[in-house]
Amino acid sequence: MRFKKIFTIGISESSFDVEYWKKIDALTEKRAFLQKDSSEIITSLNDVDCLLVNPFVFKVEKEYIDAAPKLKYIGVLATAYAKVDCAYAASKGIAVTNIPGYSTEAVAEFVFAILLEHLRELEKGKIQARKGNYSEAGFSATEIKNKKFGILGLGRIGGRVAEIALGFGADVRYWSRNRKKEFEVKGIKYEDVDRLIANSDFLSLHFAQTKETELFLNEKRIQRLKKGAIVINTAPMELIDISALEKRLSKEDITFILDHSDEMSEENLKKLSKYKNFIIYPPIAYVTKEARIAKQKIFVENIENFLKGTPINKVN
Amino acid sequence: MRFKKIFTIGISESSFDVEYWKKIDALTEKRAFLQKDSSEIITSLNDVDCLLVNPFVFKVEKEYIDAAPKLKYIGVLATAYAKVDCAYAASKGIAVTNIPGYSTEAVAEFVFAILLEHLRELEKGKIQARKGNYSEAGFSATEIKNKKFGILGLGRIGGRVAEIALGFGADVRYWSRNRKKEFEVKGIKYEDVDRLIANSDFLSLHFAQTKETELFLNEKRIQRLKKGAIVINTAPMELIDISALEKRLSKEDITFILDHSDEMSEENLKKLSKYKNFIIYPPIAYVTKEARIAKQKIFVENIENFLKGTPINKVN
Repeated sequence: MRFKKIFTIGISESSFDVEYWKKIDALTEKRAFLQKDSSEIITSLNDVDCLLVNPFVFKVEKEYIDAAPKLKYIGVLATAYAKVDCAYAASKGIAVTNIPGYSTEAVAEFVFAILLEHLRELEKGKIQARKGNYSEAGFSATEIKNKKFGILGLGRIGGRVAEIALGFGADVRYWSRNRKKEFEVKGIKYEDVDRLIANSDFLSLHFAQTKETELFLNEKRIQRLKKGAIVINTAPMELIDISALEKRLSKEDITFILDHSDEMSEENLKKLSKYKNFIIYPPIAYVTKEARIAKQKIFVENIENFLKGTPINKVN
Repeated sequence: MRFKKIFTIGISESSFDVEYWKKIDALTEKRAFLQKDSSEIITSLNDVDCLLVNPFVFKVEKEYIDAAPKLKYIGVLATAYAKVDCAYAASKGIAVTNIPGYSTEAVAEFVFAILLEHLRELEKGKIQARKGNYSEAGFSATEIKNKKFGILGLGRIGGRVAEIALGFGADVRYWSRNRKKEFEVKGIKYEDVDRLIANSDFLSLHFAQTKETELFLNEKRIQRLKKGAIVINTAPMELIDISALEKRLSKEDITFILDHSDEMSEENLKKLSKYKNFIIYPPIAYVTKEARIAKQKIFVENIENFLKGTPINKVN
């Protein structure tokens, strides 16, 4: 079994190594790229039976699904699939697959990278030393050990963050929709969500974006954050009430660190970026060589398995 | 029991919080500061019975001990005491104490801070995002998980580095003068030193400076470092053959990251600093609030215990 026509949207030639493009091409008769803002998208979808999309660039909404009567499969090039109308696709008999877990380690390690960078004033240290000034005067830092390390959402990534934090000797607490006894036996403690938010020295967000988690960090909860708390968000900014965050940042008694992808409006970005205690990185949390390889591998295996009639990583 | 006259050398007023100065003053009749380059040092030592020194600023050599006939106690404000002639002091009945372990966590966490900063290109990311460029294009990174993480010297700090690396899921190996079964049961593997050096993706140095460890990373061993290896040195640079390091850095196939205190000559510093793969920080590995408190506390307790006749942390 092969597809007749694969369309890729928001996926560039450089997204995959040559060997993976070859594997994809072996699974279809034709393949075409489409730019996300192409006016032809709707008409082009007419004879497409497989759609491969980067959901951060292109949202697969009802109208696109309606425009693709032959569509059987949507391959999402990400773990998050909230930007694809999965229920509607299912109602049309279209399978949607995602790539779970490929960036678990990449993101979990990044949480500690950006936390430690901030705690140890590394940018300042590097710049100062490069200028030939090797004085430690004026530096101050806090250790992770023995601090309350709060984790919201103990899924794959949150779970790994919890384990690494345990290695640092932190007092690790979590709140998640479901209790995770397998983590609790390791010494990771479950805590009521509002107590967790109020008590954490470091708070790392690891919810998937769903209706329940949107604006989870609302005004009340943002007000409750401990003085001096450092919040790390490698999850979507949709989890956070931006106005309330701005209000709290203006008090200069918390720090917020994130890796930003497309989810915030220019206006919101500008609003927050004027605060020194708002630290922003490009969306590089998931960018590692290991994650890139795993991502391509799983993405292609998803297509192969669907064609064989033994679908894996189906999310609808 | 109190001292008659305490001299402090290389210790500034800001080295201690007021409450600790008060405690020190309660233990002596008189106290005076001395600059390290004061010509009066020798004559001033005549009636001193307690010397408190920062060994990174001032070396306590024989001539100073000879100049202090009433000296009973030397309090070293550091973990390392190689810069005090401890054996000679012992021969004169003078106790030398150090401050073990106060900066264990601070240094161990710093190792991961500077390793991750490099692996994730954080400086570049921060600067780029601050300019409003949120593209991940051009970023590349390596994960710690599953990499060979080598540790030379499994003392207090090396041991903690090993445990944290284990939390990251690294394949942790060590070489130390003595086998440490208590670490091996946790999954930290002992390896022959030359194999360890040749196989490590990350290599962290944690030897104390002694005659046996000086120039431990000699030319042969530096040549053997794996291509692409990252060496992290929070220990003295005396462990390393600088010329051999320069030669290897010039090949651009290893990275060397350190926090530099006074141990390298200006000339050596200049020589190495011209390489992009030589990354230098001020000596801030041990600088944390927690370490500062522990340092003062133990330093004062050492003096109190000596005066009570129940010395602790005596190193000679």
